[in-house]
Order: sequence, then structure tokens, then C-alpha cells
Amino acid sequence: MNSVELVLRPIGVIHTPFVEASETPIQPTYAADAVGTVELRSEYSEGLADLDGFERIWLIYWFHRAGPPRMRVVPFLDSAERGLWATRWPCRPNPIGLSCVRLISIRRAQLTVAGVDMLDGTPLLDIKPYVPEFDAFSGARAGWLERRA
Amino acid sequence: MNSVELVLRPIGVIHTPFVEASETPIQPTYAADAVGTVELRSEYSEGLADLDGFERIWLIYWFHRAGPPRMRVVPFLDSAERGLWATRWPCRPNPIGLSCVRLISIRRAQLTVAGVDMLDGTPLLDIKPYVPEFDAFSGARAGWLERRA
Repeated sequence: MNSVELVLRPIGVIHTPFVEASETPIQPTYAADAVGTVELRSEYSEGLADLDGFERIWLIYWFHRAGPPRMRVVPFLDSAERGLWATRWPCRPNPIGLSCVRLISIRRAQLTVAGVDMLDGTPLLDIKPYVPEFDAFSGARAGWLERRA
Repeated sequence: MNSVELVLRPIGVIHTPFVEASETPIQPTYAADAVGTVELRSEYSEGLADLDGFERIWLIYWFHRAGPPRMRVVPFLDSAERGLWATRWPCRPNPIGLSCVRLISIRRAQLTVAGVDMLDGTPLLDIKPYVPEFDAFSGARAGWLERRA
């Protein structure tokens, strides 16, 4: 199968109020009021055109303080061990994080966003617009997380 | 800012019916019936425990046939030029794709999924459970995509 190495370079950095993992919210859902800023590298600011019409955006980022991957973890929201792929746990073979945040404002290459749940200084890999038609499936069954709720 | 290089290794490969970009659906929304298989590397199959309770999963993957990034693009769903970050266009500084697909079945390290919109042979980077509480925002404004609809 694939054994190639793929190389990423951060497109910017995410600043948040959270400097320790222990104080960082588990998901934006639990940190709706936490405001952060996204500093995009200036050479990419031209690509921000038209983004201001979107209420929410996906931030795709690097879990820069995650430990080595494990295939079974006890997630934050549970007391039982779960398969890694059934969790959002940060210690993954490719430590990529995904959070849907609210876009508050854009000024040059800086975005102000609400609902941040990542550590201060997190390397940003990508920004995508949140499109309900592609992304919103309110009734989707959610396994162990649903049973918990 | 960040000038480091981050290294990824595919955790598997996605097989789909689509061998040419021109015949590939724009988003899973437009390909709800397209069935694909995800072949996870066998050393990661233990992490699939508990995933079968989830109706949908996120596939995070590498746009392996994308060209060089551009900050302004004419997206598939529009005739006007848009800022890259306001689109899901594949030619991005970090060519990371994000698709929400329906999980049909799991057998050992192979997942059958529906709603695939990526090319056959796409390198898989991560799998995350789709959790409506974190991911579903049906009413979120969607800028130029909304005006089009």
C-alpha cells in the first residue's frame, strides 16, 4: 500500500486562550465563546476573498503537542476504551485536527473566530468553508457518543 | 511564522469508481450512491473498534492529483472567480481533502462507504467519526454557495 511520505507546511498559526492541554475544551461545541485568531501567512491572504459570507469555517490543523498514536484510547467524553478511529483523540498516526468554528471577522490575513478548542500556537494546515449541504447531517447516528448523551 | 515541514504517511487508500477527475463528483452530496472501499493498513485495524455505531465518518485524504495551489479559482459550482479559502477546490498549499461519507460496513481493515467523491487510489490520511453535536450546523450561512442555491 502507500508507504510514501507526504510533506505539509503550515499556512499559518492559530492563537487561542489555551496554553495547557488540561484547560483546552474538548470540542468547539463546549467552547462556543472562546475567541481565537488565525494568522494566515501573508502570501495566502488573497485567497480569503469571498470567505466573509460564510458563518462557519473548518480549521484543519496539526496536533503539535500530541503524543505517539495508540489504537485504543479512553476518550475525554467516556470512561471506556474505544477504537482510535471512533474518537477525535489527538494522538493519531497523522495528528490532524478538525474543528468547525464561527467566523467573526477578517482583517487582512487575520481571522477572528469563536469556538476554538485547540492549543495556542497550533499550526494551521487548511481552511475550508462550512457548507451545510456538504457537512450538516443532524440526524446521523453517533455510536458510543450518542449512547453517552 | 511556521516554516517547518510536517510529514504525513498514508494510513490506507480509498478505492472509488472514479479514475478521471472529469467524472468525479464534486461533493458526496452529489454522489450519495457512489460506493467505495477504504483499505486501512492492517496495523491500524484494531483502532476500528466502536466505529460501526457511527452512521457517517469523515475521510481526510490527500488530493494526490491536484496541481499547484492558486489563491483565486473558478469553483466547479460557480462561474465567478473566488478566493481559494472560500472553496473546496483541490489545488491548495496543503492538498488535504475532507468528505463526509456514509459508513456501510466494516470487515477487518476494509470499510465500505457510500457517497465517495474522490479519485480511485486516493491516499487516506485520517478517519474521524461524524458527530452531529460537533459537526452539524444546518442553518449556517454559506456565502456565494448559498446565493447560487
